[in-house]
Amino acid sequence: KHIVVIAGDGIGQEVTTVGKQVLDRIAEKFGHEFTYDEALIGHAAIEATGNPLPEETVTKSKQSDAILFGAVGHPKYDNDPSAKVRPEQGLLGIRKALGLYANLRPIKLFDELLHSSSIKPEFLQGADILFFRELTGDVYFGEKGRKDDGNTAYDLMIYSRYEVERIAVKAFDAAMTRRKKLCSVDKANVLESSRLWREVVQEVAKRYPEVEVEHQFIDAAAMLLIKDPRRFDVVVTGNLFGDILTDEASQIAGSMGMLASASVGDTTGLYEPIHGSAHDITGKGVANPLASVLSAALMLDISFGMKAEAEAVVDAVDQVLKAGFRTRDIADANTPKDLILGTEAMG
Amino acid sequence: KHIVVIAGDGIGQEVTTVGKQVLDRIAEKFGHEFTYDEALIGHAAIEATGNPLPEETVTKSKQSDAILFGAVGHPKYDNDPSAKVRPEQGLLGIRKALGLYANLRPIKLFDELLHSSSIKPEFLQGADILFFRELTGDVYFGEKGRKDDGNTAYDLMIYSRYEVERIAVKAFDAAMTRRKKLCSVDKANVLESSRLWREVVQEVAKRYPEVEVEHQFIDAAAMLLIKDPRRFDVVVTGNLFGDILTDEASQIAGSMGMLASASVGDTTGLYEPIHGSAHDITGKGVANPLASVLSAALMLDISFGMKAEAEAVVDAVDQVLKAGFRTRDIADANTPKDLILGTEAMG
Ligand SMILES: CC(C)[C@H](C(=O)O)[C@@H](O)C(=O)O
Ligand SMILES: CC(C)[C@H](C(=O)O)[C@@H](O)C(=O)O
Repeated sequence: KHIVVIAGDGIGQEVTTVGKQVLDRIAEKFGHEFTYDEALIGHAAIEATGNPLPEETVTKSKQSDAILFGAVGHPKYDNDPSAKVRPEQGLLGIRKALGLYANLRPIKLFDELLHSSSIKPEFLQGADILFFRELTGDVYFGEKGRKDDGNTAYDLMIYSRYEVERIAVKAFDAAMTRRKKLCSVDKANVLESSRLWREVVQEVAKRYPEVEVEHQFIDAAAMLLIKDPRRFDVVVTGNLFGDILTDEASQIAGSMGMLASASVGDTTGLYEPIHGSAHDITGKGVANPLASVLSAALMLDISFGMKAEAEAVVDAVDQVLKAGFRTRDIADANTPKDLILGTEAMG
Repeated sequence: KHIVVIAGDGIGQEVTTVGKQVLDRIAEKFGHEFTYDEALIGHAAIEATGNPLPEETVTKSKQSDAILFGAVGHPKYDNDPSAKVRPEQGLLGIRKALGLYANLRPIKLFDELLHSSSIKPEFLQGADILFFRELTGDVYFGEKGRKDDGNTAYDLMIYSRYEVERIAVKAFDAAMTRRKKLCSVDKANVLESSRLWREVVQEVAKRYPEVEVEHQFIDAAAMLLIKDPRRFDVVVTGNLFGDILTDEASQIAGSMGMLASASVGDTTGLYEPIHGSAHDITGKGVANPLASVLSAALMLDISFGMKAEAEAVVDAVDQVLKAGFRTRDIADANTPKDLILGTEAMG
């Protein structure tokens, strides 16, 4: 299998280095051969080439069997709303170029981290949610611009039937292999694009009579996710609402540093932590690499169909946590100092 | 003072009845005269007149000194995405007609409810956030529609400089009277309307050098709100992001049933609970009326400048909670059954 590593910005480099090491160890143990290439994106690509998504990155990605992705972003652009070229264009561009319309974000709490969250353990125990976030449509990709001499700015929130249908099908298929519950999240009481969303999900639902379906408005969903996380099994939603809900849901898993994601479509899959570039801790060697490690596990499972290998990785994470090891973000007041590891040691 | 009561749908009727009783008691105690009128909105107005916002409701509202609002919404429309006339049009319509561009949502935990949340008390103690949600712009009011024979649906997310400026000024003014911290929430790494938002907030910030300002992306904010609610003082954000964050923030206050809001602009203010019509409990007499009572307190304070009266109401709520009384939503396993009250008794 040929894997392209796109480390990107901030802690992206540090965490994908660990993700790659884990893939190497799996290859060794299970007798596979993984070859690697690297490619630029984001701020790193802007610095090197002026372009947040060099053509070469897209070509290499298309020719690979899977992509191990780090993060993009840089504070320089965040505080300069007028910048025309931005790191995030690299990430959005590659999602679009590869047709990665389905972003799977599993939220599962490792037993050992039951007490690391700000949420009470009795509300978390047993929570297990699989988010399907639509990834190539919505207000992310609609026409955007300025008018009135720059004094008015707009972004078009837009969805077409086929876009909603294909992500809904993926979500229902997944629900059939799980607890057969699906919650679709929209804002159909206000938005026309959400009304289309709801219409299409209702139609697709007819093909899955065994799946128990509910529709929630995004505001209520944001509340229920914290109030009663266990009520959710599969959640399907649009690009923007999915972005918000899955970051929020990271508190269910104890830390953003634990959450992996898989972006899939009709071709090469891309595996990426949910966390961002985290410039505040970049280069300090303290970032939690487990989201990248768990992203590698998703790659083994989804892109390569290597179930046993994927399970071995998840088991290893579990063992390491059971042995008491923690990175800073998942340590608490009771963690002995010598069990708090840096990125490399955790790897 | 002349007050229009717009009860609306679902539990709106039950809770505003209590809100009004509290206003009457204040009038009696402090020697004021409050007169009332009623007006229709939402599903109730559609049933009676075919129109979710009858002209008469707007006229009465404009002529009043303040509006006590209940809720709008009905499951019938939620499950029928193709309905053209919808209860929510009444609420959005009156916000727009009265120019209620600033929605204040104070999130404050009553000491007695420290243990009613799914969030650990040690993360909540002392949390005190004042949200300023922009209320008459954004994707709520941009052009919306269908094309491609109904197979594509869109909503325009749009902001103009003056819209951002006036809500930012209100938020900064409030920050100056509080802990002098302001967090502006947007998605400027992806959205052009958010980049304008950030630009304008940065400009307004220059006029308030004493206020410590931070900008957060909506995904990060949704996470931080749960991870560390105490880091926030004043939060200012757009209509959609404000809708989502404030519902989520209800978990900080223990229950949605505790949260009041004030919608203000240049004329008559409208006071409304954050919770919705809650048809699942309508007519059962179990709804928590305290959000309506606290909305009445905001009315006394903001529209009538009656500080002592407003404090008396908040104190009364505090006393009632201290005495151990609870509605169902804020009761827990340890609440003695005879202290769990219905809507009327809690009033
Ligand atoms: C970096 C940003 C553009 C991105 C997004 O909003 O999609 C990130 O938040 C994510 O969730 O992958
Ligand atoms: C009922 C609905 C239109 C409304 C909104 O989204 O503004 C409600 O959720 C609110 O927060 O007041």
